[in-house]
Amino acid sequence: MTYTEIVEQIKTKKSFLCVGLDTDLDKVAQSVLKTDNPIFEFNKAIIEATHKYTVAYKPNIAFYERYGLDGWRSLEKTVDYIRTNYDNIFLIADAKRGDIGNTSKMYAKTFFETFDFDAVTVNPYMGSDSVIPFLDYNNKWVILLTLTSNHGADDFQTQKFNGSKPLYISVLEKSLEWGTADNLMYVVGATQAEMLVSVRQVVPDHFLLVPGVGAQGGSLSQVADNGINKNCGLLVNSSRQIIYASTSKTFASDACRAAEKIQLEMTDIINNKI
Amino acid sequence: MTYTEIVEQIKTKKSFLCVGLDTDLDKVAQSVLKTDNPIFEFNKAIIEATHKYTVAYKPNIAFYERYGLDGWRSLEKTVDYIRTNYDNIFLIADAKRGDIGNTSKMYAKTFFETFDFDAVTVNPYMGSDSVIPFLDYNNKWVILLTLTSNHGADDFQTQKFNGSKPLYISVLEKSLEWGTADNLMYVVGATQAEMLVSVRQVVPDHFLLVPGVGAQGGSLSQVADNGINKNCGLLVNSSRQIIYASTSKTFASDACRAAEKIQLEMTDIINNKI
Repeated sequence: MTYTEIVEQIKTKKSFLCVGLDTDLDKVAQSVLKTDNPIFEFNKAIIEATHKYTVAYKPNIAFYERYGLDGWRSLEKTVDYIRTNYDNIFLIADAKRGDIGNTSKMYAKTFFETFDFDAVTVNPYMGSDSVIPFLDYNNKWVILLTLTSNHGADDFQTQKFNGSKPLYISVLEKSLEWGTADNLMYVVGATQAEMLVSVRQVVPDHFLLVPGVGAQGGSLSQVADNGINKNCGLLVNSSRQIIYASTSKTFASDACRAAEKIQLEMTDIINNKI
Repeated sequence: MTYTEIVEQIKTKKSFLCVGLDTDLDKVAQSVLKTDNPIFEFNKAIIEATHKYTVAYKPNIAFYERYGLDGWRSLEKTVDYIRTNYDNIFLIADAKRGDIGNTSKMYAKTFFETFDFDAVTVNPYMGSDSVIPFLDYNNKWVILLTLTSNHGADDFQTQKFNGSKPLYISVLEKSLEWGTADNLMYVVGATQAEMLVSVRQVVPDHFLLVPGVGAQGGSLSQVADNGINKNCGLLVNSSRQIIYASTSKTFASDACRAAEKIQLEMTDIINNKI
């Protein structure tokens, strides 16, 4: 998907919600566990229930890998299901990959060719040649880890680097040599909402993928106040708050209501701020 | 495997060689491509040919993921083959993972429970809670990216952080709060051999996994001069130089000779320096 197509979807759906598919069989409803492919059946039910309110889905690859071949099969079925049944969904592999050039090229093949994802989250620690192979695809995206929502972010990301700026600002600045607002987004945690202001000073036009709203304690209105731009420029992820809205038989309709609630807040934000 | 067991293997085999299984079907011999499971058949032939000279194998997970389910099946068969046929092989998942705590826990399950790896390479960018879940296993290892062998390492890793030290030194120092020489190793690229001296000042006893010898231009003798300690403390990886020693029908015996050649150099180093 292109930048313009993403913005169109946000305006059409009045939503900048991304639903994180962190599917964990220890947490899903009993009724799903009885099916042949519980991970996929859970995802399918969640997607059916939430797609009206959602512009993006983000399977967290760790949750599939942990089940080995069965997990990868479920991931494949989930991607195929979305591609077959819904148009214009922005599909993010939350994989946090990154390696030397010839290896990053393989990871890019995995997520952009073997699977038909639109975007993959990439770790910047290894620098330019670990990121650039992912940018060699038309209409595909790198979402670069910048300022994450976990407390470990303070070990390196927010510490001063090369003089007076925090490392996450240096990551943003350096990445502008690698890509543009048309193929590069950034992960900026909602738990660090006040730092969104400093992020926007460096990348006013880029999309930001914002995790950490909900279970991790971030506030949607604060994220919007500090991070929104004229094209919205935000994809706000919620995982647990939606997909585990309940663990009863009604988990899908409960997820639907949880997604709708967030989408209504987003509609207000879009109407007031864009 | 424990620290002591790894040292014993190094002394028994007179080798600190790790063979990187970066298996790429575009590069393997035609004779292998005709088999039902060419990735596995290639790995099996390489392992049979090189195990006498090798203390560790390191499948590069990207090269398996790129083939989707077939790739993960080949990885599973490779791990099972090693575990069934050879004792005391140190098995490294070169996966370069790392995410928020609950997700790193899933990645740890993948490589330490679903697959029976001894170690996994982990990216430090997200800090403490992205690394610690991998350290919660007995006799399993984190190999933390510290100073990598690619040119992108100069974008962040070698730049000054929090005052006067390079970032990679700060990563070493911080990581000493998370683990010990009994569960933590570091990736230090052979292309940066002179920097091994500064690494050894911070972590004199830890094992270092050193990629970049061979195809990437690093020198084994320089690595040994700057990085060896009283227990050896080095695992030097070679991938392409061994596994693609040739692409003819004799690729396995050619790989055997390439591994033996490196092991002979290592024997000299061990005899002279430990």
